[in-house]
Amino acid sequence: MVYIMDEQLAKIRSGDLKLYALEKLMPADEAVSLRRKYIEEETSADLSAVGSYSIPIDRVVVRNIENMIGCVQIPVGVAGPVMVNGEYAKGSFWLPIATTEGALTASINRGCSAITKAGGAEVRILRDGMTRAPIFAATSVAHATEVARWAEDNLLLLKTAAEETTHHGEMIGLTTYVVGTNVFVRFEFDTKDAMGMNMVTIASEAAAKLIEEETGARMVSTSGNMCCDKKPSAINVIEGRGKSVSAGVFLPDDMVASVFKTDAKTLAEVNMRKNLVGSARAVSLGFNAHAANAIAAMFLACGQDPAHVVEGSNAITTVDAVPGGVYVSVSLPSLQVGTVGGGTTIATQNACLSMLGVAGGAENPGDNAKAFAEIVAVAVLAGELSLLGALGAQHLAKAHQELGRGGTK
Amino acid sequence: MVYIMDEQLAKIRSGDLKLYALEKLMPADEAVSLRRKYIEEETSADLSAVGSYSIPIDRVVVRNIENMIGCVQIPVGVAGPVMVNGEYAKGSFWLPIATTEGALTASINRGCSAITKAGGAEVRILRDGMTRAPIFAATSVAHATEVARWAEDNLLLLKTAAEETTHHGEMIGLTTYVVGTNVFVRFEFDTKDAMGMNMVTIASEAAAKLIEEETGARMVSTSGNMCCDKKPSAINVIEGRGKSVSAGVFLPDDMVASVFKTDAKTLAEVNMRKNLVGSARAVSLGFNAHAANAIAAMFLACGQDPAHVVEGSNAITTVDAVPGGVYVSVSLPSLQVGTVGGGTTIATQNACLSMLGVAGGAENPGDNAKAFAEIVAVAVLAGELSLLGALGAQHLAKAHQELGRGGTK
Amino acid sequence: MVYIMDEQLAKIRSGDLKLYALEKLMPADEAVSLRRKYIEEETSADLSAVGSYSIPIDRVVVRNIENMIGCVQIPVGVAGPVMVNGEYAKGSFWLPIATTEGALTASINRGCSAITKAGGAEVRILRDGMTRAPIFAATSVAHATEVARWAEDNLLLLKTAAEETTHHGEMIGLTTYVVGTNVFVRFEFDTKDAMGMNMVTIASEAAAKLIEEETGARMVSTSGNMCCDKKPSAINVIEGRGKSVSAGVFLPDDMVASVFKTDAKTLAEVNMRKNLVGSARAVSLGFNAHAANAIAAMFLACGQDPAHVVEGSNAITTVDAVPGGVYVSVSLPSLQVGTVGGGTTIATQNACLSMLGVAGGAENPGDNAKAFAEIVAVAVLAGELSLLGALGAQHLAKAHQELGRGGTK
Amino acid sequence: MVYIMDEQLAKIRSGDLKLYALEKLMPADEAVSLRRKYIEEETSADLSAVGSYSIPIDRVVVRNIENMIGCVQIPVGVAGPVMVNGEYAKGSFWLPIATTEGALTASINRGCSAITKAGGAEVRILRDGMTRAPIFAATSVAHATEVARWAEDNLLLLKTAAEETTHHGEMIGLTTYVVGTNVFVRFEFDTKDAMGMNMVTIASEAAAKLIEEETGARMVSTSGNMCCDKKPSAINVIEGRGKSVSAGVFLPDDMVASVFKTDAKTLAEVNMRKNLVGSARAVSLGFNAHAANAIAAMFLACGQDPAHVVEGSNAITTVDAVPGGVYVSVSLPSLQVGTVGGGTTIATQNACLSMLGVAGGAENPGDNAKAFAEIVAVAVLAGELSLLGALGAQHLAKAHQELGRGGTK
Repeated sequence: MVYIMDEQLAKIRSGDLKLYALEKLMPADEAVSLRRKYIEEETSADLSAVGSYSIPIDRVVVRNIENMIGCVQIPVGVAGPVMVNGEYAKGSFWLPIATTEGALTASINRGCSAITKAGGAEVRILRDGMTRAPIFAATSVAHATEVARWAEDNLLLLKTAAEETTHHGEMIGLTTYVVGTNVFVRFEFDTKDAMGMNMVTIASEAAAKLIEEETGARMVSTSGNMCCDKKPSAINVIEGRGKSVSAGVFLPDDMVASVFKTDAKTLAEVNMRKNLVGSARAVSLGFNAHAANAIAAMFLACGQDPAHVVEGSNAITTVDAVPGGVYVSVSLPSLQVGTVGGGTTIATQNACLSMLGVAGGAENPGDNAKAFAEIVAVAVLAGELSLLGALGAQHLAKAHQELGRGGTK
Repeated sequence: MVYIMDEQLAKIRSGDLKLYALEKLMPADEAVSLRRKYIEEETSADLSAVGSYSIPIDRVVVRNIENMIGCVQIPVGVAGPVMVNGEYAKGSFWLPIATTEGALTASINRGCSAITKAGGAEVRILRDGMTRAPIFAATSVAHATEVARWAEDNLLLLKTAAEETTHHGEMIGLTTYVVGTNVFVRFEFDTKDAMGMNMVTIASEAAAKLIEEETGARMVSTSGNMCCDKKPSAINVIEGRGKSVSAGVFLPDDMVASVFKTDAKTLAEVNMRKNLVGSARAVSLGFNAHAANAIAAMFLACGQDPAHVVEGSNAITTVDAVPGGVYVSVSLPSLQVGTVGGGTTIATQNACLSMLGVAGGAENPGDNAKAFAEIVAVAVLAGELSLLGALGAQHLAKAHQELGRGGTK
Repeated sequence: MVYIMDEQLAKIRSGDLKLYALEKLMPADEAVSLRRKYIEEETSADLSAVGSYSIPIDRVVVRNIENMIGCVQIPVGVAGPVMVNGEYAKGSFWLPIATTEGALTASINRGCSAITKAGGAEVRILRDGMTRAPIFAATSVAHATEVARWAEDNLLLLKTAAEETTHHGEMIGLTTYVVGTNVFVRFEFDTKDAMGMNMVTIASEAAAKLIEEETGARMVSTSGNMCCDKKPSAINVIEGRGKSVSAGVFLPDDMVASVFKTDAKTLAEVNMRKNLVGSARAVSLGFNAHAANAIAAMFLACGQDPAHVVEGSNAITTVDAVPGGVYVSVSLPSLQVGTVGGGTTIATQNACLSMLGVAGGAENPGDNAKAFAEIVAVAVLAGELSLLGALGAQHLAKAHQELGRGGTK
Repeated sequence: MVYIMDEQLAKIRSGDLKLYALEKLMPADEAVSLRRKYIEEETSADLSAVGSYSIPIDRVVVRNIENMIGCVQIPVGVAGPVMVNGEYAKGSFWLPIATTEGALTASINRGCSAITKAGGAEVRILRDGMTRAPIFAATSVAHATEVARWAEDNLLLLKTAAEETTHHGEMIGLTTYVVGTNVFVRFEFDTKDAMGMNMVTIASEAAAKLIEEETGARMVSTSGNMCCDKKPSAINVIEGRGKSVSAGVFLPDDMVASVFKTDAKTLAEVNMRKNLVGSARAVSLGFNAHAANAIAAMFLACGQDPAHVVEGSNAITTVDAVPGGVYVSVSLPSLQVGTVGGGTTIATQNACLSMLGVAGGAENPGDNAKAFAEIVAVAVLAGELSLLGALGAQHLAKAHQELGRGGTK
């Protein structure tokens, strides 16, 4: 066995065996092992830890990755249980948190505890649609205008062409944008339980081809960056991408005092100064404390695309001091999630989705992804509550201290 | 054994044993196992896959996570080798790519191949500084102005206070911002080989305390959101956060033709229409094709904070058609990386850093993190090249086709 | 007469005569004169220049201003004639340019000359709708969602309520946005030849009242800042506000050489580096050279609201090097103009609108405002062309010089 | 006389007399009159109103405009007096408000009245520096880095070169930005009482020439759009441009009740929901109600560049409910003003500056422009107070009404 491997290594070194082609010649685990040996040789690094994975990889090497050499392992903790009062997710949930950042799980956990004590968090999905925006090159402003108008006038034709490429996806609508000779057509799809980028890309290409044929404009790229995928962008904040979700909870005054050692007014002030005014002056798309932390941790645990943390971080946190307590909310305009496809099929990630009861496709297609989105929003709310609470406690203490000193200024 | 576990499970159920406290009572692996059993019971999910991790976790449960129940495993592939001509990273590197998104490794690999064929990519770090911006509440605009002026006038005092809290960090400078009664003091530190958020937070708190004492302004939060951590924000695009890195490569015309089946002019046009004009109209902070993909994949492989993909995605890609070929570059103003601390100590992630020869602290502190930043920038460049090349090939084909048709419009 | 004025001045000083009430007691010109005398007395300033206006002010003191003391005079020059090939503005126009910035009129004039020589500029209006977005306070995320859904489900009801307040305005549609307990309903109206803010505000209030009554949410403000009026904002760049207009012109190579002393490639490079890459790194909403200059100058001449220059400056300039020449365009997503109401009725401003043949209401309501928008877009194009041409000429000269030197780097 | 004019008109028509050259052949007023006649003939418009200006124009036709045909007249009202407690402007001021938008003067006036009653508004200038950012094309990322480093290392050399071009301007510093092969050097100048764009442009060109010579990079444009002039951009919000000014006022509870018929809590809520949350979701650079209105009106009255309203609108309004009352502030990071040069020398505009006691250069150069900036900031504060007060009154009324109804939701 060792001998055979040595022989194959020699062939890789000589170029007779292509590194990417190993899976065609041997079982997946063996290919991965051989490739890892070669890389160890090349880099003088000990990659045995990377090699000691335990997930089944036959599908993985076909669907999820090329040139595999092993796996990294990311610790998963739990926070909860948290009570969720959504339209799709209802009940008590334990949240899987994949992170290497100490204190994050504990922080989310503390927020979950407050939420549950308060009877749970309300969650609503305001909008749901995955987008792709091909860009077309027209020859002039007049031509560009014709292209845009043609696309708007032929929505049904485009919808038909797009939907022929997919079993599940439905085109919801399109919006056109013209910049000089550039025409962007932003298609929006209901992708059910899939995050849906691949589905939407293929469907958009079919529709784009029709636009090309009928208008004479050339498609420059299936993505013209107005989609806008994996880039921070205002269009996703304003128009939404994937799920637009809001979660909120009312905490009565006594709970604010007992759990967070602060009061409603202080929480509201901290949120205003830090999350609203601070983000305003930083010209940020994220008016929150650390939404990306909760999103990244849930995304990694549950097999979501980690580059979509970018759009997830477009969150606004609000704190309203209201009679009798405080109403705290988070709104996530562009949360892109799925419970089928991509990383959700990896064994460990699938198990984490199972913890939430949302693994795979729902009986009513789309319900699992929606439930998952609601739960992620509540996780974000928990993280925000926890951090704001801690800041509020410190701030209140200082304010009291200062009053005690008679005030310095 | 099973009997003992059942007993302990019963105690957890009854609340006699706290879920977060298990590590204090038993070895880490046992605690994790017991907790997982309890969660399996609670959620009816089979979490055995999550439980079959292989990394040593004694440090992990102390430093990286609370309430651990196991690990998720993320496949790692390799791309390369890629020739890097940086000031810190010099030579040929195999890039570890952790992803579940099929085609990503192959795409980066194709870009690496072009870069290497062209003699390697140049990389430069333009700026390096991790930031924290505490926010202070003043009583008036006049008071706020005094606070800001005091901080600016007492940089050395603040630097001394801050650096007393850290062995490695050095305060580089500070900038003040006033919005009404809100004063933000954005401290900037050289954090050497650490990504450095924790170090910087503690050091900033010490400096902030001094500001409070001397000016009578109350610190509302160690982070006033002008840092700006894990939120998309213009301040990081403009001023930089962590490393500001640019990578570029010149590809001669014949290579553009042979490798990418397109030409310089077409590449430049695709980049302008998609990455520049498209992102402009989307009001994006990212003028690139898919920088976040490469960053997320390298970050996950190498134990970086995945929420920092948010800032990483602030990248601008340029394509200059120049005499004899094309110069393609990526500029990443806010790349936050480290080779010590956080997730970099996990066995599998540490192995991936070793592949790049940058695991742990460098002999000259900071050099490993800088080398790693340079390599990540080249990975992003490879990903951009590959995608633009593919688009260019399609676009050129269409342009020819259209000319053949005599042009429709 | 002097005696009487002295007596009245004494009454103003003593508070027996209110400064704002003078128009009720005497003819407008006399009131203005008296008030100016008082202010001269108070400030020791000689305001005689301000007092020597010549426009009729009887309507002005009622409709356009309170506490009037006179007028400022702003010089008006002409640029042109420029050939406009719009859908509403067709033919040759002399542009009135009100400015105190030397060289601006000359610069626009030079661009006009090139455009006309090239056969005129194409212009198209892509979208037309004035917006107002009241904000409602809901009690919870669930309530906010109900409010938004109610508004979306009752568009016709809201349209009816809104249109009862106006003779001319038509509600085109609405979009809802939810942020925690905040609900924004962005109404969009066709306001015909009026810029329409007042009309739209009143109509939106009527619709908002209905929302309040039916949903129990409280309207906090008729403008919730998602309109978004007189603030730079991405929503106007992306969704448009007022008119979204694009203008473009093809210049053949020989004209680029003869008129601008440069070539297509250089023009395209200058635009890419400065207007696209520079604005990207500045995180700007304006990817142009100086669109605001032309807009401000036309707006002042023609009685538009000068605060709307803010949105006007959201322009993207593109330069495509194409076979045989160059295609240059500007796209203005949020140009807010009118030919009736506001400052358009002042005698001097009305005369400037007459120069363009668009003063007052059009036979087909809306056509004058649309024609005016098209002309303004061409003025912007002229200004951009002129500045880019000048930069291109310098840049080309340097490039040649450098080649002559053998190149330094 | 008429005969002569007819003859000259004939020459213009035939092209023997160039429209732009008339001032060289006859007195300015005559040239303007002749040109206007020609344009009247060309456009069939009656431009007599435009022709009946009264300002002296001998300097105007040389310095401020080309191809002059007359003037537009814009009504000026007064608001005030308002008490200003600045570092440069101290005392009571009557504000000249040039507008055609009814109710604006009255609104600012109401705010002035509250401010004065409260003892005046505090104002502070946080930063002062006019910027220009030339852009250089380098040949590679490595070259670009060298260029940036050279500029940073040679600040004094560049300062000397720049200051040789100007009597008044002083270079304060520079910042470099690299995007691929593009290098931006943002120079910052103290321009004393001048707004200073021309001065700064000329000085920056001299410095840029030195950079070209020493580094071999080519200057593409004196403005690389990171200045960032007359475009909405985050760099101006964050780093400031021109004057960065904050103004604030404390209003005791009883005054809030008597003047505005509302209370501190309601004012704070309205500001948070509308100006902070609304602008956040619109992805705006302006977190204010209508700052641009006051700025545009003061700018027009006082001969400022109206295109600078764009940057002026980057304002953040805050409302803090504090013990005993409310503290309201506005912060304007990028207010670009001058009291010498440009439109400030026109007779009517100069008179308005005189009303404020800031016409022309100050004894201590720069003090007039600073005083003017402080006054403009207070005008903005007055406008914000007035509008927020009105909204607060309505909102409070509704809240009471609703409580009276027992609450509907």
